[in-house]
Amino acid sequence: MVSELGERRIIEILLESLDVMPSMTVPFGDDASAVDLGRERLAVIKTDMLVGKTDVPPGMSLRQAARKAVVMNISDLAAKGAKPVALLSSLALPRGFKEDEVREIGLGLNDGAREYEAYIMGGDTNEASDLIISCSVLGFCDKALFVKRSGAKPGDIVAVTGSFGKTASGLKILVEKLLVPIETRDPLIQAVLMPKARLKEGLALAQSGAVTSSIDSSDGLAWSLYELSKASNVGFLIEDIPIPWEVERFAENHNLDPVELGLYGGEEYELVVTVRPDLWNAARKAVGKFGTQLNKIGRVMEDREILLETEKGTIPMKVKGWEHFKT
Amino acid sequence: MVSELGERRIIEILLESLDVMPSMTVPFGDDASAVDLGRERLAVIKTDMLVGKTDVPPGMSLRQAARKAVVMNISDLAAKGAKPVALLSSLALPRGFKEDEVREIGLGLNDGAREYEAYIMGGDTNEASDLIISCSVLGFCDKALFVKRSGAKPGDIVAVTGSFGKTASGLKILVEKLLVPIETRDPLIQAVLMPKARLKEGLALAQSGAVTSSIDSSDGLAWSLYELSKASNVGFLIEDIPIPWEVERFAENHNLDPVELGLYGGEEYELVVTVRPDLWNAARKAVGKFGTQLNKIGRVMEDREILLETEKGTIPMKVKGWEHFKT
Repeated sequence: MVSELGERRIIEILLESLDVMPSMTVPFGDDASAVDLGRERLAVIKTDMLVGKTDVPPGMSLRQAARKAVVMNISDLAAKGAKPVALLSSLALPRGFKEDEVREIGLGLNDGAREYEAYIMGGDTNEASDLIISCSVLGFCDKALFVKRSGAKPGDIVAVTGSFGKTASGLKILVEKLLVPIETRDPLIQAVLMPKARLKEGLALAQSGAVTSSIDSSDGLAWSLYELSKASNVGFLIEDIPIPWEVERFAENHNLDPVELGLYGGEEYELVVTVRPDLWNAARKAVGKFGTQLNKIGRVMEDREILLETEKGTIPMKVKGWEHFKT
Repeated sequence: MVSELGERRIIEILLESLDVMPSMTVPFGDDASAVDLGRERLAVIKTDMLVGKTDVPPGMSLRQAARKAVVMNISDLAAKGAKPVALLSSLALPRGFKEDEVREIGLGLNDGAREYEAYIMGGDTNEASDLIISCSVLGFCDKALFVKRSGAKPGDIVAVTGSFGKTASGLKILVEKLLVPIETRDPLIQAVLMPKARLKEGLALAQSGAVTSSIDSSDGLAWSLYELSKASNVGFLIEDIPIPWEVERFAENHNLDPVELGLYGGEEYELVVTVRPDLWNAARKAVGKFGTQLNKIGRVMEDREILLETEKGTIPMKVKGWEHFKT
């Protein structure tokens, strides 16, 4: 049963069934797929489905959920350096849904698209027991600028936009109904309810030519590092994980490990990239233009293992991440 | 509640919530959407979701269901004269699904794509109560060849590929478990289980320059005619509907009206087009190359009404079609 197989094995089974397009520009399993348009341009496509039961935490409005369904897709294009232009949205609605709820979904879809200068251009409506918002996005980029997961080289700098742990903390607050002081609570909750895709940053990083591999952190930082290391056939030494003060304080008050919150959360749409050391300043500047910090978290190593520096010394990083069917 | 609103009102509500892309090449609500690539080329995109509970009749295997989820999308591109290249597939699987069932879905997706020389290039897997297969497709066409729903002119010939009623009859046999002689049963059932998109025909019709408007008949012939007449702001006089002998015989044996089966079935993926009278032979030949008959069924009229010639005289055609939430 799929509940025993887990999502990653299911994807393997599906991939075994598929013919591979000859001269496919991007291999299966990257953040997005690409079709060569000729003249050095790519059409970049991605689909990602939001399921009410598993992907909408308590406290998230329908408008926010629909917006998030769009943002999830935009984030994948951001990681590849592709500019989203058009989105399609397939909905499944439970029978009991009301007119206002349908409108909320329409508004949320539009919010998500317009925030990133894209448009919802079509869709499809169906009936099902679960609420399902399945979006797909079409974007474009220069062939030379598309950033795969597979280009990291030993010696490259491992870097991330922003910081980690807010989403995992916010989700815990919402799910476990924790009482938290308002000045900590607000930013943590907002990270869950109104996630942002790092589109401008991703486009600028691709443009800078400094980035050798890239992924978004939607399955958690640890899992993203694992995927990058697998695709690039390298390892990482992770020296430092940027944890914001709200997460530090929340962890302290609730006897949690802030690094665990940073590594093993999910749906935190930061970019995890590797950067050529000689172009590190160019990469930092590219992201800094938008008021976003590009934080160095480690180094690319030859051996395919992920090591984490801690107060107790350097240890192998536990690899786990959000996986459907396994929870 | 959406069960009272019906699918078409839901779509209206959603559209009211959306910003419209300036200079959008194809208006909302056509069979597919298009993005201008420059140099007179369009990227054409479409999404359509298959829900196990409502779209998979008894007797249809998972492999056939997954194949159909692809074919539904290909058919929409066929109607627009766009060549499909890449598909994405978002799946929601119930927890109890088995490994073999996952493989069946993978194989069916591949079947559908490869039959039309396209490839599955990516996707997403989730958990839900219902089986859901949401596909989206990316294709391309010359801007001048894209056939909208809106170009029909009074005097044009109304025509269809193939014949109508097999799918409605086959569905009745499967759902009501009717006993039908094998030589009638087989083609009727096959129409349901293994629907074909008229891709070669659609591409050739677009290439011929003879077609002024086009739609696929996935919501039934009557509904497709209604949509064409609305988009083109014209009416139709329908003189004749091609009903195959299997449907005639099935209708006779079960005391049904064969014309009703032809007009009000759904998921019958023929093309419904209007054709310039001076290019009628070119259009027929374009489709005939593939062994498919282009059948004249009527004329485009100025007044926006759809009239049907019957043995009892000319009557207004009842407009109804398959609609989610309303059944």
